[in-house]
Amino acid sequence: MSAQNKSSRIDEWMLQKVYRAAGQPAVRLGLRNGVEVSPKGALPAANIVIQDRKTLFRLLLDPEAEFGDAYSKGRITLDGDLVSSLEIVYRSMTEVAHPSWYVNLVSKCMEYVQRNSLRGSRRNIQQHYDLNTDFYQLWLDPQLVYTCAYYPSPGATLEQAQVAKLDYVCRKVQLQPGERVVEAGCGWGALAIHMAKNFGVTVRAFNISREQILVARRRANELGLSHRVEFIEDDYRNIAGECDAFVSVGMLEHVGRQHYRDLGSIIHRSLAKNGRGLLHFIGHNHPLPFSTWTRKHIFPGAYAPTLGEVMQVFEPWDLSVLDVENLRLHYAKTLEHWLARFEKREQQISEMFSPEFMRAWRLYLAESVAGFRVGTLQLFQIVFARTDCRRIPWTRAHLYTKERHEEQETTWMHATS
Amino acid sequence: MSAQNKSSRIDEWMLQKVYRAAGQPAVRLGLRNGVEVSPKGALPAANIVIQDRKTLFRLLLDPEAEFGDAYSKGRITLDGDLVSSLEIVYRSMTEVAHPSWYVNLVSKCMEYVQRNSLRGSRRNIQQHYDLNTDFYQLWLDPQLVYTCAYYPSPGATLEQAQVAKLDYVCRKVQLQPGERVVEAGCGWGALAIHMAKNFGVTVRAFNISREQILVARRRANELGLSHRVEFIEDDYRNIAGECDAFVSVGMLEHVGRQHYRDLGSIIHRSLAKNGRGLLHFIGHNHPLPFSTWTRKHIFPGAYAPTLGEVMQVFEPWDLSVLDVENLRLHYAKTLEHWLARFEKREQQISEMFSPEFMRAWRLYLAESVAGFRVGTLQLFQIVFARTDCRRIPWTRAHLYTKERHEEQETTWMHATS
Repeated sequence: MSAQNKSSRIDEWMLQKVYRAAGQPAVRLGLRNGVEVSPKGALPAANIVIQDRKTLFRLLLDPEAEFGDAYSKGRITLDGDLVSSLEIVYRSMTEVAHPSWYVNLVSKCMEYVQRNSLRGSRRNIQQHYDLNTDFYQLWLDPQLVYTCAYYPSPGATLEQAQVAKLDYVCRKVQLQPGERVVEAGCGWGALAIHMAKNFGVTVRAFNISREQILVARRRANELGLSHRVEFIEDDYRNIAGECDAFVSVGMLEHVGRQHYRDLGSIIHRSLAKNGRGLLHFIGHNHPLPFSTWTRKHIFPGAYAPTLGEVMQVFEPWDLSVLDVENLRLHYAKTLEHWLARFEKREQQISEMFSPEFMRAWRLYLAESVAGFRVGTLQLFQIVFARTDCRRIPWTRAHLYTKERHEEQETTWMHATS
Repeated sequence: MSAQNKSSRIDEWMLQKVYRAAGQPAVRLGLRNGVEVSPKGALPAANIVIQDRKTLFRLLLDPEAEFGDAYSKGRITLDGDLVSSLEIVYRSMTEVAHPSWYVNLVSKCMEYVQRNSLRGSRRNIQQHYDLNTDFYQLWLDPQLVYTCAYYPSPGATLEQAQVAKLDYVCRKVQLQPGERVVEAGCGWGALAIHMAKNFGVTVRAFNISREQILVARRRANELGLSHRVEFIEDDYRNIAGECDAFVSVGMLEHVGRQHYRDLGSIIHRSLAKNGRGLLHFIGHNHPLPFSTWTRKHIFPGAYAPTLGEVMQVFEPWDLSVLDVENLRLHYAKTLEHWLARFEKREQQISEMFSPEFMRAWRLYLAESVAGFRVGTLQLFQIVFARTDCRRIPWTRAHLYTKERHEEQETTWMHATS
């Protein structure tokens, strides 16, 4: 056998192995030298070409991480629709084996290196959220809400759906004028401002991204709301003082699974007797870390928990879970909007960042659309309350009446028992 | 010191200890010999008299279990409203210590003796549910629904609220004509019959209480629904065959915490690709067994889990939790109705059972009202689905439209993504 023949047999063997590890999805997978595997009896939805043998070898070791790395560096190219190709792969992958010991080991090491200590969290958060705001302004909604929107109907615009989400959160925790709210992880301040402006509450909003805090403060100033919204550059673990509602939208993913009890103790320490709150976060059906690529290049230190894991926030403090809603389809739609806007602004973004950054972020957004569509990712909103809380609505019907500003016909617990 | 003095000093010491262990509630607690403790600065809401020293001593060892035992045997009398007295005690108790090692030990032993093996479950269930149906007919609604009702408004009657609950469950799992439903733990068959009659599905309903199964079969026959509802006297662990929806209302409490994974494997094995389901059960905010009295005299082998514990049903099988609702106030109201009806039928019930049974059941119902009011007990409804399920409504608004029988305006996932 010639050396060339021999090495192409090895290529084919490796290719087959990678293909099987992905559950034999309906895509064509090939090396640039022409060796390839194709789905049996199905038209391939995309053509994925691996540029060199080293990449193929690395895919064998840690497929998810290497795919991200190689795609963003141009060592893998994909001809076809990125989102639907990823959907196909995700669906076929759920049927096959679990990560190898090597993947698990690398994952564990990374979890340690990126641990969410007070200092670690600051470093982790800065890497993502301190990218300049101009970048996010190019593809988020005008209020810069960087979390799952709520589409009362699927045809709503992104702007409408983000406003609807802010409102939905406020109604879920039953905010009343004059109440004190703590927000943990406030992004660019849209929710805090919405609460103060439309529900007459005072808000203390915490965030460790300096860039975001500065923008949020400026906005509150411009809207004349500085007396009712305070933006504090600090870690959630340093929250002190009492509040009637504790709200956190899109921060739990950055808390880390070692710290749910800590978060619970902060909530417990903060909430007044009548207190209640809401957590909104990306979750999983079963315990699963993000790929090491995602954690290295997109969200350092992030972890999306299962509902079972999150219960560590509530159970030690006797907090009652009142309502859990899974909004994964709403996040798929939100991300579709983001991705479309991102592509539309490709020119401007590529003037700000390298081609590698562009490809990495395109992949991150596309993977997220696919993950929420297929169900490898979930989006949970949990409403909770102290056992003593009397502000529990009799049913959830009040969330689905159209007239928010009219007197709600909500029946309260104390009126009925 | 005379012997009489000395023993009354011991009585007082024991009484104080019991009183403090209960968190010093606003009730007067005394021995028949006149020794007593009263709340400081508050009018006692009730007068609780312990008839003998042995009872007092036992209260020291295991307060919850002995209170149940002594109350039902007449060794403790309570002058005042039973439900509100229990509420006061529950509220004060949540602030104090955890069960003693003795209580925990007895509790563990009982859990072992009453373990929910195939045979054990049958024995446990028969003790409660095979009491004759005439008894339950005296105080349940006409359809004999022995689980938490759903009151669209607090003023609804028990009958209305039970029908509303049956409907709510069907709408939550989005039943469609022609689908196949499995019900695990079907009571006297009201839900299974409601589903077949109003939603055009076929139902296989399982129960290990022979008495209940016989009644359920007779009803289905009378309504001409036998071709669509099959009542099967068997354990949930023996469920076989495929279904589109898996529903279980009020059975999980009898499954036992060792068996959640088993239940999950049955659901996983049964559910079609598009399958979804609902679990409805009594829960706790934090892990807590029922008192040994409750388990000995009312619900052998029962355990009300936390949401965290219940996730063992779903997580190993990649089932998605779509919706969790806490209906504890609805169960408080349901139980108020049951207790009022029970009291009204006191005469007839006392012709069927001993005075001890009467007192035990009055206490069980009153404790339950108080527990759901105070929040030591929760009532959860969990909607779940396979990841592949496409029958996921876009929002929950469809649950709160009044016109069930009109064409629903629900938007489905497949129409939008």
